[in-house]
Amino acid sequence: MITLNELRKFQNLKREHRKYTNIDPLPRGGIIYPNARKALQEWGDGYSVCDFCTGRLDLIKNPPIFDFIHEILPKFLDVDVICITHGAREGIFAVMHSVCKSGDTIVIDSNAHYTTYVAAERTRSKIKEVPNSGYPEFKIKEEDYTKVIEEVKKETGKLPTLVLLTYPDGNYGNLSDAKKVAEISHEYNIPFLLNGAYAMGRMPISAKEIDCDFIIGSGHKSMASSGPIGILGMKKKCENVILEKSKYFKIKEIELLGCTSRGAGIITMMASFPHVVERIEHWKEEVKKARLFSGQLEKIGIKQLGEKPHNHDLMFFESQKLYDISKRHKQRGYFLYHELKKKGIVGIKPGLTKNFKLSTYLLTEKELKTVIDAFKDIIAKF
Amino acid sequence: MITLNELRKFQNLKREHRKYTNIDPLPRGGIIYPNARKALQEWGDGYSVCDFCTGRLDLIKNPPIFDFIHEILPKFLDVDVICITHGAREGIFAVMHSVCKSGDTIVIDSNAHYTTYVAAERTRSKIKEVPNSGYPEFKIKEEDYTKVIEEVKKETGKLPTLVLLTYPDGNYGNLSDAKKVAEISHEYNIPFLLNGAYAMGRMPISAKEIDCDFIIGSGHKSMASSGPIGILGMKKKCENVILEKSKYFKIKEIELLGCTSRGAGIITMMASFPHVVERIEHWKEEVKKARLFSGQLEKIGIKQLGEKPHNHDLMFFESQKLYDISKRHKQRGYFLYHELKKKGIVGIKPGLTKNFKLSTYLLTEKELKTVIDAFKDIIAKF
Repeated sequence: MITLNELRKFQNLKREHRKYTNIDPLPRGGIIYPNARKALQEWGDGYSVCDFCTGRLDLIKNPPIFDFIHEILPKFLDVDVICITHGAREGIFAVMHSVCKSGDTIVIDSNAHYTTYVAAERTRSKIKEVPNSGYPEFKIKEEDYTKVIEEVKKETGKLPTLVLLTYPDGNYGNLSDAKKVAEISHEYNIPFLLNGAYAMGRMPISAKEIDCDFIIGSGHKSMASSGPIGILGMKKKCENVILEKSKYFKIKEIELLGCTSRGAGIITMMASFPHVVERIEHWKEEVKKARLFSGQLEKIGIKQLGEKPHNHDLMFFESQKLYDISKRHKQRGYFLYHELKKKGIVGIKPGLTKNFKLSTYLLTEKELKTVIDAFKDIIAKF
Repeated sequence: MITLNELRKFQNLKREHRKYTNIDPLPRGGIIYPNARKALQEWGDGYSVCDFCTGRLDLIKNPPIFDFIHEILPKFLDVDVICITHGAREGIFAVMHSVCKSGDTIVIDSNAHYTTYVAAERTRSKIKEVPNSGYPEFKIKEEDYTKVIEEVKKETGKLPTLVLLTYPDGNYGNLSDAKKVAEISHEYNIPFLLNGAYAMGRMPISAKEIDCDFIIGSGHKSMASSGPIGILGMKKKCENVILEKSKYFKIKEIELLGCTSRGAGIITMMASFPHVVERIEHWKEEVKKARLFSGQLEKIGIKQLGEKPHNHDLMFFESQKLYDISKRHKQRGYFLYHELKKKGIVGIKPGLTKNFKLSTYLLTEKELKTVIDAFKDIIAKF
């Protein structure tokens, strides 16, 4: 028996973080725009987008999902075919599940997101990593893909079934030369999957120019969408592999189980999209902002790891100073979280001081200054 | 290049159906409650629920996801273990993918939702149907499961790997005796999956009483949640099969790719949940309402198919009269849709007259009367 008392906690779900400047890379690109928030009021009900369903999510004309998926998004990403997934990880799994058989090997960068590993495990595939360069830049050398592919061939007697690059990776924000990895994959005739969860919707990206066979994006991470929703783009020639139709229900795509993001995700992605198109035009300014931030933090002894000069808003920092403070502070490692919060800033995981990541994406000039000053003040105070 | 003109259609996404009484069974149980609509404003941003992530969605304490998944929902469904999926179909796939190997056979009821077939195809499993009784009741005879299981054994040399029942089915709203099917499955030592997408959140349900190994529900279909989100409940002994952890990331569950419904779905499900708990108490009244409605329509020659007396709000109707009208009406089959809309009612698919399904779930007395009168008026008018 569930008591009324037990239910009380669900009745008024307030989000504390809404009042703060949030520098966690995870939500920064997923903040929805006011008209998307309005759209949520209209379409918040379950299955609302299916009012005028004609058999499949992507074919719905009202709201304009068909146009969005089949005309606008392919243009936006310069790719042949788009389908909607529940998120980047679900897109990665869909590709792996369609392309790889149990026991196959997938070559990935060692900076890959954890879900890459888990998706491979779910398809019962093996993983072989292209190592990064280690401290302090942790870069992926594109030519190492050749080496690792050859190793797989030697060890298993056959080529890997899929090559994957994380672009940028979610730890250091490093952007490898994706085009070069595509070239290497194609020399071996292996399909190439680009995980652009932190790229698509933040920075300009052309699947054709990179020449990837598959490209993955995340709505809630980088396309100002209410989660969960993702995008999977592919070359025309890959369509039959991924979007094979059911033999029982001719219109339904097996790998997508018929329909995927039937709700708030697709509505907010569409509603936010005009802003997303606009914001990627300002990508160079975002990179400039990140470099300025990195430079300011380095001045007070907080070292940026990963590529330098940096090419993305997601940055990883190392600070012996903050770590030393934590050792003598009564709140120990939690002091940084609390000090920043006092200054209206959240997003660095409670407990971290020595290593942490953050993002400056879409921070206003004033917010950027507030964050820089906060770190300066904290270092000076202790 | 995307033009501003092309983007205009995404800027103000209005939902026409919000103004109408919607009798489409798909969204009726998914209408969110006012406090869930408010929660969407707070938590609409991508990854908002992950502000205080400690490594996995179901472990988050603020908002109270941990309590919801590990305390409240197991009580609500009388089941050992709960996990969150992207929807009922994704839950069905997760079970099939964990339990079945390529080439295995799954025994399902022939009234099963299309996604059951597609999920089986995605796992490369074969399907064997328990036939229904045909026109007009289309009932599944529970004892036929024995026959079909024996057939599979005879034909393939081994037992099916999974048994599934749709409870109720989404076409006729028939409720079979799930307990009996569970018994039959267990006689053969085959795990039993109950698809309760139209049950969980509408009517009282106890997984223990039915003795199913797995139970599936849909948030956007029947738990007043913004889509997509679903629930997968299971016996303790099945936990290791479904929720196996990654060898790379010890805390992450492979079949769920780490985390599932990281956003609007889980928030609205929690916010609506106190109302859901309350509404299932009134299930008997809902059944009474459905029977009253069915009786009134039968009086004007619109025949209810499926079980009679009916035990669920989802009903399938057959009307030769409306079909005859459509043949001489200038709007042809679309006349019914337009006539109902004039009376403030939507939800019967445009074009249908002879066969259609609808739901009376949570209609107020006044709305119910409006819908009954609408059908009476239309029949009388033509």
